[in-house]
Order: sequence, then C-alpha cells, then structure tokens
Amino acid sequence: MFSEDLYFTSKHAGRLYELYAKDLPIIDYHCHLLPQEIYEDRQFEDLGEMWLAHDHYKWRAMRAFGIDEALISGGATYRDKFLAFAGILPRLAGNPLHVWCALELKRYFGIDEPLDATSAPHVYELAQAAIAERGMNPSRCIEQSNVEFIATTDDPADDLRYHGLIAAQNRKYRVSPAFRPDRALNAEKPGYPEYLSRLGAAAGADIASFRGLVAALEKRLAYFKGFGPPINDNAVTQFEWADYSDGDAERAFQKARAGAPLSRGEINTYRSAFLCEMLKLYSKHGFATQLHIGAYRDANSAMSAAHGPDSGFDAIDDAASVRSFGALLNRAGSEAPLPKIIFYPLDINQYEAFAVLATVFCGGDGSASGGDRRNGDGASGDGGSKGGNGANGSGGVRGKVQLGAPWWFNDQIYGISKQFESVSCLYPVALSVGMLTDSRSFLSYPRHELYRRALCNYFGTLLDRREYFSGERELGAIIGDICYRNAKAFFGI
Amino acid sequence: MFSEDLYFTSKHAGRLYELYAKDLPIIDYHCHLLPQEIYEDRQFEDLGEMWLAHDHYKWRAMRAFGIDEALISGGATYRDKFLAFAGILPRLAGNPLHVWCALELKRYFGIDEPLDATSAPHVYELAQAAIAERGMNPSRCIEQSNVEFIATTDDPADDLRYHGLIAAQNRKYRVSPAFRPDRALNAEKPGYPEYLSRLGAAAGADIASFRGLVAALEKRLAYFKGFGPPINDNAVTQFEWADYSDGDAERAFQKARAGAPLSRGEINTYRSAFLCEMLKLYSKHGFATQLHIGAYRDANSAMSAAHGPDSGFDAIDDAASVRSFGALLNRAGSEAPLPKIIFYPLDINQYEAFAVLATVFCGGDGSASGGDRRNGDGASGDGGSKGGNGANGSGGVRGKVQLGAPWWFNDQIYGISKQFESVSCLYPVALSVGMLTDSRSFLSYPRHELYRRALCNYFGTLLDRREYFSGERELGAIIGDICYRNAKAFFGI
Amino acid sequence: MFSEDLYFTSKHAGRLYELYAKDLPIIDYHCHLLPQEIYEDRQFEDLGEMWLAHDHYKWRAMRAFGIDEALISGGATYRDKFLAFAGILPRLAGNPLHVWCALELKRYFGIDEPLDATSAPHVYELAQAAIAERGMNPSRCIEQSNVEFIATTDDPADDLRYHGLIAAQNRKYRVSPAFRPDRALNAEKPGYPEYLSRLGAAAGADIASFRGLVAALEKRLAYFKGFGPPINDNAVTQFEWADYSDGDAERAFQKARAGAPLSRGEINTYRSAFLCEMLKLYSKHGFATQLHIGAYRDANSAMSAAHGPDSGFDAIDDAASVRSFGALLNRAGSEAPLPKIIFYPLDINQYEAFAVLATVFCGGDGSASGGDRRNGDGASGDGGSKGGNGANGSGGVRGKVQLGAPWWFNDQIYGISKQFESVSCLYPVALSVGMLTDSRSFLSYPRHELYRRALCNYFGTLLDRREYFSGERELGAIIGDICYRNAKAFFGI
Repeated sequence: MFSEDLYFTSKHAGRLYELYAKDLPIIDYHCHLLPQEIYEDRQFEDLGEMWLAHDHYKWRAMRAFGIDEALISGGATYRDKFLAFAGILPRLAGNPLHVWCALELKRYFGIDEPLDATSAPHVYELAQAAIAERGMNPSRCIEQSNVEFIATTDDPADDLRYHGLIAAQNRKYRVSPAFRPDRALNAEKPGYPEYLSRLGAAAGADIASFRGLVAALEKRLAYFKGFGPPINDNAVTQFEWADYSDGDAERAFQKARAGAPLSRGEINTYRSAFLCEMLKLYSKHGFATQLHIGAYRDANSAMSAAHGPDSGFDAIDDAASVRSFGALLNRAGSEAPLPKIIFYPLDINQYEAFAVLATVFCGGDGSASGGDRRNGDGASGDGGSKGGNGANGSGGVRGKVQLGAPWWFNDQIYGISKQFESVSCLYPVALSVGMLTDSRSFLSYPRHELYRRALCNYFGTLLDRREYFSGERELGAIIGDICYRNAKAFFGI
Repeated sequence: MFSEDLYFTSKHAGRLYELYAKDLPIIDYHCHLLPQEIYEDRQFEDLGEMWLAHDHYKWRAMRAFGIDEALISGGATYRDKFLAFAGILPRLAGNPLHVWCALELKRYFGIDEPLDATSAPHVYELAQAAIAERGMNPSRCIEQSNVEFIATTDDPADDLRYHGLIAAQNRKYRVSPAFRPDRALNAEKPGYPEYLSRLGAAAGADIASFRGLVAALEKRLAYFKGFGPPINDNAVTQFEWADYSDGDAERAFQKARAGAPLSRGEINTYRSAFLCEMLKLYSKHGFATQLHIGAYRDANSAMSAAHGPDSGFDAIDDAASVRSFGALLNRAGSEAPLPKIIFYPLDINQYEAFAVLATVFCGGDGSASGGDRRNGDGASGDGGSKGGNGANGSGGVRGKVQLGAPWWFNDQIYGISKQFESVSCLYPVALSVGMLTDSRSFLSYPRHELYRRALCNYFGTLLDRREYFSGERELGAIIGDICYRNAKAFFGI
Repeated sequence: MFSEDLYFTSKHAGRLYELYAKDLPIIDYHCHLLPQEIYEDRQFEDLGEMWLAHDHYKWRAMRAFGIDEALISGGATYRDKFLAFAGILPRLAGNPLHVWCALELKRYFGIDEPLDATSAPHVYELAQAAIAERGMNPSRCIEQSNVEFIATTDDPADDLRYHGLIAAQNRKYRVSPAFRPDRALNAEKPGYPEYLSRLGAAAGADIASFRGLVAALEKRLAYFKGFGPPINDNAVTQFEWADYSDGDAERAFQKARAGAPLSRGEINTYRSAFLCEMLKLYSKHGFATQLHIGAYRDANSAMSAAHGPDSGFDAIDDAASVRSFGALLNRAGSEAPLPKIIFYPLDINQYEAFAVLATVFCGGDGSASGGDRRNGDGASGDGGSKGGNGANGSGGVRGKVQLGAPWWFNDQIYGISKQFESVSCLYPVALSVGMLTDSRSFLSYPRHELYRRALCNYFGTLLDRREYFSGERELGAIIGDICYRNAKAFFGI
C-alpha cells in the first residue's frame, strides 16, 4: 500500500516535506511534451496508451523480461500491452518504474491497489472509469499536478504555432517553447543541408556561411523570445573540444552543407565553433542554456533503425570529458560574458567534476549578466540582503553556472539522493533550480514529488547528524527556493 | 563474536534472509577450482594451506603490513604463515578478509573464538582437529556448503579428463567445465604460436588462418558441450574496439602466428575480430558468455615475473570503455543473434553504464534466442504468465544481457550493496543470476551467504522506505530467483 | 546550536571518539602555512582576515551566490567581506563551509551563536574581543589545537630561513619543510630557465643537463634533511606516462632550458623522466613521497590570470590515468626500491583504483625500504609481533604505498565517509596515515576533528552491522594509529 512516508528515513523529513515542499506549484522548465498534444487536449484512450505509447523506460524493462516486441512497441492493443507490463511490475523491485506507477495510480486515479498480473484487469477498468468520468486529458493532468509553467523542446525552424494557440486560450498554466538547435549542431547527420534550407526559410535568410547560420539562429532566438522566457536546451553527444579558427569552422560548415562526410576532427571543430558562438548569442539575448552531456545514442543500431530514436536503445557514454566543456566555457567566456548554464552529465560519476567546473565559471563578471538583473528578486532573499551589505543587490547572478537535476537514467531515488549528498559538498544546493520531468508523459509530474521527498529527506538527515546550524525556518526557505522560486528567478518566468 | 544479524540494518532483513534465502542450494557458475583437486579429494593439510596456499587477497594484505615475503608466498611453513596472517587479522577492520575469515571459521570449523595473534595457536589446533576428525577435503567443503553445481574455468585445448572422472563418480554435486579461450584471445602474448599447435591438435585440425582458428574453437565448443551446460568465460583486458575487415583480422592473425610482435592497433583488430566471431559461435551453440572487463594485469611487472600470475600484483584499469563493448555487441548482433551475455566490469564506477548498455541489447529478437527456450521455465513465473497474457511464453530470454555480480575487488559488502542500490534503478535486479565465488578456495562459499545477506538487507531497506508495493511473498520469490533459480535457468543447468 | 554528536549516526561513534580519538595530538604532515607567518606570529586583524584573506573555498561559494568580487577578493574591508559571507552561510546547508565555520567559531572563539546576516555584526565583535583578549596569532591557534607537528610546502631552492628561525625558538610545536619541486617538474611553464638558475645557485652547481638537474635536486634534498623529517610533495597535473629513454629526457630538458615551447609528448617525456628519477632519489634518501594527482588548474583562464593561482578557478580533471601512475611506479621500482608513496587523486571516483594500485607496490622488497627501519616502532604493535612470528620485525614498511586522505574538494563528510566505506574494503584502513589540513588557514585544524568523527562513526557502523570481531580495545588501537601514530611512524617524526 502506498504510504505518505515514502522514502523518508530521517525523522525530520516528513515535517519538512509537509510544511515547505508539498504544496508548492511545479515549474517544469524542460520536458518533451508535444505542444500540439497540449493544445488539442484529447481525452486519453486508456491507461495502456498513457503508459506505453512512448515510454522507453517501460519498453526497456519489458525487453529485459523477454516480452514479445509486439506487446512493447508493436501492434498489440494498449490493453494487452498494459496487461503485459502489469505482469512484470511486481518484479521491478528497486526500479523507479515500480514507484512511479504506484504513485501515478494513486495521484491521478486514486487507486491504492497494488498492480500485478492478477489485479491488472481490474485496475485497467478503474482507470478507464476515471478517465471517462473526469474527462482526463493533458490539461486535467497538468492542472491536477499544480503545474504553473511548462517549457517544451522546439526546433529553431519551428513556427511555434501551437504555442501561440495555447497562449491565446488563457489556460491555468503557461506553456513556452525552449530553443533546441540539435539539428544545426549535428552537421554530420543525414539531412543537414535540407535542414539549413528549412531554417533559412524560417529566418528569411539564405544560409551560405557559418556566420550566416549563426545570424539565422539569432533571428530565430528573437522569434522564440516572443513566446515566453528565454530558454535554450542542447543535446551534446560525443563532443571533444577543438580549438578552432574561424577558417576551420567555415571549412567544416561548407563541407557539411555540401553533404560531404565529416571526419571526427571536422565534427569536433564544427561543434566547438557552433557551441561557442551560440553561448555568446544566449548570453546576448539572456537565454538560459541547458547542456545535456554524454548520451551514447543508438548503441544498438539495428534496433534503433527499426524503431526510431528514443525507443530504448541509447546508453551512457563514459567518454564525455569535463576538460572539453571547460575549454568551451573558457573560450566562450573569454570572448563575451557567459550565459546562465546548466550541466546535465549523464554519467553519474561525473557529477562531482561538473559541479566543481560550474563553480569556476560563476561570478567574476556580475556586470556581464546581461538582461537578467531581475533574477535576483525571485528567490527568497539571502540573509545577505537583510544584513544590508548590498552583496545581492550587485546584479550578480545566483547559481549562474550549475549542475542540473539527475538526468534520464539517474532520475530516481539513488541518483537524486547521491547527487544531494555528494554535490551539496561542492556547490551550494540552495542555488539549484531543482527538478524537471524531461518527459513526454502527462503523468510524469509525480517525479517532482519524488524529488521533493528526496530533498526533504536529505535535509532531514543533515538535521539528524547535527550538520545544520541555522534553524528549520531557514531550511524551509531553502527548500522553497529549490522546489519553486529558484527556477522562476533563473529562467525569468 | 559472530552474530546471525551480520550486515542487517533493516528490520526486515533477518526475516527475509531466514525465510527466502538461507537454505537455498548454491549454483557456483564461475570459479577457479581445479578439476584435478576436486577429483583427487585430498584431505587438507592444515588451515594455513587452506587459507594461504593461493589466496592473493590475503597475500596483498600481508604485504601492505610489511610482512616478510617468506611468510606470504615464500618458503615458511603453512603454520607460520597462518600465525603471521592471524596477527594482522584484527587490524583488517572493514576489509572483507576480516569477515570472510570469521565466517569460514564459524561455518566450516564451528569456531566462534575471534582470531588474533594470541588465539592463533589454539585456533590452529582446533582447525587441525576438525580437519582430521571430519576428514575435510574438497567434497566435504562443497557438500557442507549445500553446493549443487560448480563450473570451473577451462582452456579450449583441455581434454577435460578430470571432469569426465568426476562425472563418472556420481557425486552429490555436479561439476562442469566453462570454455575460456583467453590464450587464443591474447595473440600478442609469448607462446601464442605454440598454443595454436596445441589447440589444433585438440581439434584435429591445422590452424593456418583466422577462419581456421574459429573453426577449431567451434569443434572444441562442441566437445565441451558433452561435459555440461554451455558456459563461456573471457578475461578481456586493454580492449579497444577496432572496426576491422576480414583482411585486417587475417593479417593480424598471420603476424601473431609467425610470432611477430603486434602493434596496439593490430592487437585491437585481432581482439575485435576474435570476440565478434566467438559471440556468434556462442549464440549458435547456446553458450552463455561471461566478459570479465578491465583488469590491469601485472601492474608490478618485476613482482609478477618473480611470483607468477594471480599472485597479487594486478590492479583496476580505468581505461576500459563502455563504447568499445557497445560497438562489439552492436556488430556481432548485426551479423547474428547475440548470445546471453554477462558483463563484469572491474571498475565499480562503470556499473551504471554497463547496466544500461545491457538493456540496449535485451529483447528485440525473441526468435533469435537460439536453443535456450527452456530458460523460460526455471525461474519463478512472473506475474505476467499468471495473467495469461502470454508475454513470457514467447520464448524471449529473461535478462539476456546483464550485469554480473561485483567482481574481484568489489566482491565485498560495499561493492555488493552499492551495486544493488545503484543498478536496481537501471536494470531489473530480479533478473540477476546472482552470486558466484570466482575463487580457487574450497572455503569461499560463505561469499554466497554474504551476498544473500546484502541482498535481503537491500530489499529490507526498500520495505523500510515504503518503496515496494507488491507484498513480501512476491519479494521472497524474487530473492529465490536471484539466489538460485535465475542462474539455473540462464545457464540451462 | 553546535552538538557534540555532530556526524554520529552509529550508537558507538561517540564513545569511540571520546575514548580513542578526541584527545590525540595533531600531526599535520602537509599544509600550505607560510613559515614566515608562523615565525612572525602577528596577531590577527579580525575574523574577516582570518576567514577571507586567502580562502578560495569561501570565495567560490560567494561567487556562486553572485556576490560582487569587491567583497570577495577585492578592495572591500575585511569586515564587509565577513558580513557578505555571513549572509550566505545559512544557505550553505550541506556544504563543508557551513560546518567548518560553526566549528571554528566554537573551538577558537567559544561562540555558539549561529552566524547569519542578523548575528554577523555581533559575532564579528565577539571574535574581535577574543582576538584582542587572547592575543590570537598563529601560535595560539596551533597550540590550542593540540598540534604537535607541521610540515609546510617549500621550493627546493628555498633557503628555509624561517624554518631555521622557528626551530631556534623551541616552540611547543615543531615545524618542518616539505620538499616540493613543482617548478622543476613543470618545464613547460614560463620562467623555467630562470628557475634553473635559481635552483643551481642554491645547489652551488650549474644545471646544464637533465642529470645535472637531478644532481642539484639531490643536493637540496640533503639540505632539507637538516631541517626535519624527510617529506616530499608533488602536484602532478595532466600527466601521461611516456616510456622515455635518457636521450629523450635530455632533449626535452634542453629544449625547455632554452625556453622553447614543448609539445605534449615532450612534456610527458620530461615529466615521466623527472618523476622517475626523483622517486629513486626519495627512496635513496628516505623521503616519503606525496603525489597530488588530477587537478585541472586555471580552468577559467581569464579569471586565473586576473586573480592569480589558487583563487578558486581550478577544477577536477577526469583524465588522470591510473595506468600512467602504475607505469611510473613500475619503472621506478624496477630500477631501485620505491620510496614510501601516498596517492591523492582528486577525482573521488578514482579512490578505488588508486587504492588497489597501491597494494600492488607494497611489500615484496622489505630489504629495500632503505633508511626507514625505525618506522616499524611508531604505530601500536600489530598482534603479529605479540604472536612472536617476527613478521613485523622484518623491517618491512607498513602501508608503504597508500591512498591519502580525501584531497581538496573531497575533504568533507561525504568524501571522507565514502573513502572509509569504499577503500577499507580494498586496502587496510588501519595503515592509513590519516588526516592533514592542506590549508593555509591557521583555523583549519578542526578538519582533523571532523575526520576523526567520521572515522569513529565509520568504525561504529562496523560494530552496528556486526562486521568487526576483535573487540573495541583493538578498534581503539587502530583509531589511535590512524589519527596519530601511523603518521609519526610513516614520516619518521
């Protein structure tokens, strides 16, 4: 049975969670929800669709159990897929899916009954009834989850039509785009020349040079700003820094534009130049930059080709180098002020090194934080401002470069708890912008609850061990910042 | 004093262990016991011999304490070696040796008295008396430990004579060979040409080409199948994937066959081709494949040369790359179905990345799982089959590619517990084939007890934290699968 | 409020700490205190100076909070800097600064009041009063902390004048130099040719060859030995082993001596040769060698250039290779006995691999441990000697090569606890030489208290989990060794 003490091992955790975390709205500043689906707000078919239409976490687990692909991503009905998945759920002890499913049943459907092969048909019917009765659709899920803000993931060439339509509806929650130029970053991929044309058309420009590409993207940045707070996101895979010249970058660009294959060195040159120029643009236009680092995409290339991207055949790269990202920020920062940056390394063993790297690029140029002065107000005032020393009135950005919440495979109790324990010692956790879903499921908001529970348990443990000296009220303010206020301030929401 | 609550921090752990784990037989599917020693069943001389004749864990610890090599691997009597070791045992707080020794004294000799310099002569006598009284020999140890099955480690050129002799005796436990072609894999090592002759003789073939080598090994695979379930094992050190052509592989082979030194590139080419071709053979013949990854052998080359291999001068390589193994499986899997595979990375910080890589190669080709259909029956039925959805009747292999139990240096409470906590979030722990000793000591079976204790404590912690919703009975079934049934099913025992 | 139960989660921890750890003197065998400051013993100006004049940990945290650089390393008064820092202290939940500050206020100033923006002016006054009343200066801090021995960090060309002056004063504590030839190691850095001249002048020799350099350094080693126990320290950054010949080393040296830029390969050749030759010298002269491994210096090069080294712009390199250090020790050890060595890897994920590497180079040449025979006496006798087996009378060195205490970013509760839990399973923690401050603050000795607390809590946990069988008295002896006696024996203090 579900217990409201889930995850709590500290005697203080439950109280901290109840008082300071539980009721805060959700700012989901990075996810993969489709604007069109949000706009259309179609009632869900059944829990099978809600759970298994796209969820590569569940697909992966089902494959490990040797279940037929037909019941995973194949042609079986959603009901049959649901039943197949339900059959393995009791066996997923210790896996986040086990907890997520229980929490989703509890929070969205009021179902306490443990799901297994035996109860599955009944649970399926209960969920069906709830969907029908409450008219469950994207908006119901979002509203029920107390979500205030959502940023989706959008290509620079996108016309953001659905964002416009949603905004026109005055919904109870806000939906904004995030600028994600992966297709422009990955010049070696098939379709790059065609993409340049599409992007050029969107920007009203002919993209004939690397400079021209950057200029076109700058136009699209301006366009995106019309639809919400300035948020960027990037998937940076297999990146090794190359200390390029402008000529190097142009040559690599021209080769890619002509559809010629790039060498590893040319790919690195192009990516280095692209990321460096874009960091400068993000800074200029006040975009907060998110770097998703170290995915090993399509590791099983035959299955990826058969099932498409994001179907469960990606892994963790162990070759992403802190030095490469250090070199990138070092060069970009020497040419212009850096934007706000969040690192999301996929390798859990790199959290420490990236957290320390983040500190190296914080501060030092308070005057360079661009148009983001307002982000000093959002979060609860540090004692510093009360003390009247003016430190926080300087316009300096709080947590300017920081480590993001555990990404993808690490978005579970072990990854989250380990990050709190390890990284709080290296970077002020109080400055963290907290959790995001990174999901395309409308039922994924309980991950914020799980993160908040883990956070409160972590802080409770500090109290248990007598490591915190400033009182619970102050701790409550920190919790509120991490769960809600820091993200609003950081992204300018 | 020894306590039956060893390792238990969860209030549920003791109950889970008693009810679901303690009394299960042991399937020791990978070890380094010598078939000849098992066959000859000679009574042990004394506890000094049992503990110190080969145990490089103990040797290493003694060297760290500055003990004379004469008392370690040298010419001193086993009694003196035992006394020297006993003197440091109280100082090995937190080291697995401290716990292993206490548990071995308790379980095999009924000795509760803590061992130290003072008690050592008395403990030695007690052990002597027990050895004499019970006629302690390999079989006594194996039977007393409730061992049902043992797989040793055998060279493809071996005639498996002792396996035949043991099998003819109808012992209470079963002993099978495992096919370990390390000498064929390491073409750059001295003696490779001579080894080819020996292997050729065993296979009744002249090995004059890379194809010929693979063909000879296939003959030996067939021979090994006559002696037990099809199990393979490999030590893969310093491996970097090279995307070879058949010509590349042949050239590297011919060079090695001629006894010429190979470049790093040629070594990588040869190993890539060798491993890829062998994976295809293992799949064809239903061999479960074990990959021991990332040992840094003979790091102290002078001492290794003086004392021979496996005498305590190996370390952990931090250069083994997940991408190299991903590339290997990707290519092998694109040319033929993959066999069942277990990864044993030696670097504890690679558990997460290898666990996720394993998921990428699970499922997807249920029809390709070869002759292993039976392995659906062994483990306790997933709820799925009860639910009648047929998912597990598909012939898909459960846990087809998976992470193995913590290897070597990590086979201790920290490594095991960390793996449960971290990897269960990434791969269904319920599918794990569980523990193995990897030892050449007949007293090493308590490591299974320690693993089971750690496992039950881990699951107890899930209950403590309210993370498990499907009831204790189901958890008990999972424990039984991990400790016993999964290994039987996976290896077809 | 500060609690004497800080960090204790085991019910045994407090007792172990009180009985066996708390009152032991401190051996601080590696720090960055300036001999001149110790000698001059100037009374401190205020707590702002004591805390913020040099402390890049605090600077880093303040930058993360967006505080003006003027209030960090800039021109503001120490009082204003103190107030600015106090303002963020309550927000540093989970960060070592939060605990360090509380403990320093408690131990040196008797201040229990939590420090925050509101209390800051009052706390500042209280500290001022204490400084004035007690005449607080370096010696007061050192004596109050029960420090018996301090080793500073000194360039081989240094005349050690202040060490001589301090020694002449018969202080209650002893101060010795440690030989740190970083400037000779980093041949690629600007100023290397000039440094050679300075070093040559100090050694009374013209340094015209690589051999000449080594000979000059040997003269300085002899000079250093006149000032205290033989201790060496090295910062080894971006080191990749190159299997050099003497000619290679000489060529790289001559190029560097001429002020010509070195290639990456030449840098590696030079460093390999330098470190190898120096290890042989350290062994010959009985110097214990410390290797600080894997810092990523000046990652933000503009800020480093503006603020100088050690101002908070360094990070953690994730490219330091265990194999490179293995190759170094393997070669040096094949040419001469190895000296005692301590590894300090900065990447917390390399603790396991370096700990195992250390075991590979322990023992094996008891007769080769040079002039260090005395170091068998210091630490509490292992049971072994009681047992009369003579093992420890062999002159073998205990813990000859070992892993050091967590360095820099990892010198906090998570890093220390993780090292105990993880590494004790791989290397006998009982042989550890324990804690050091590595600091240039006279208030940093409470880090020894924190380490001792973490150690006692770790051992308490072993008792909680019934993993230790030899009784509390023996555990107490181990604690005393780690906290005090091992360091004295290892360094010959």
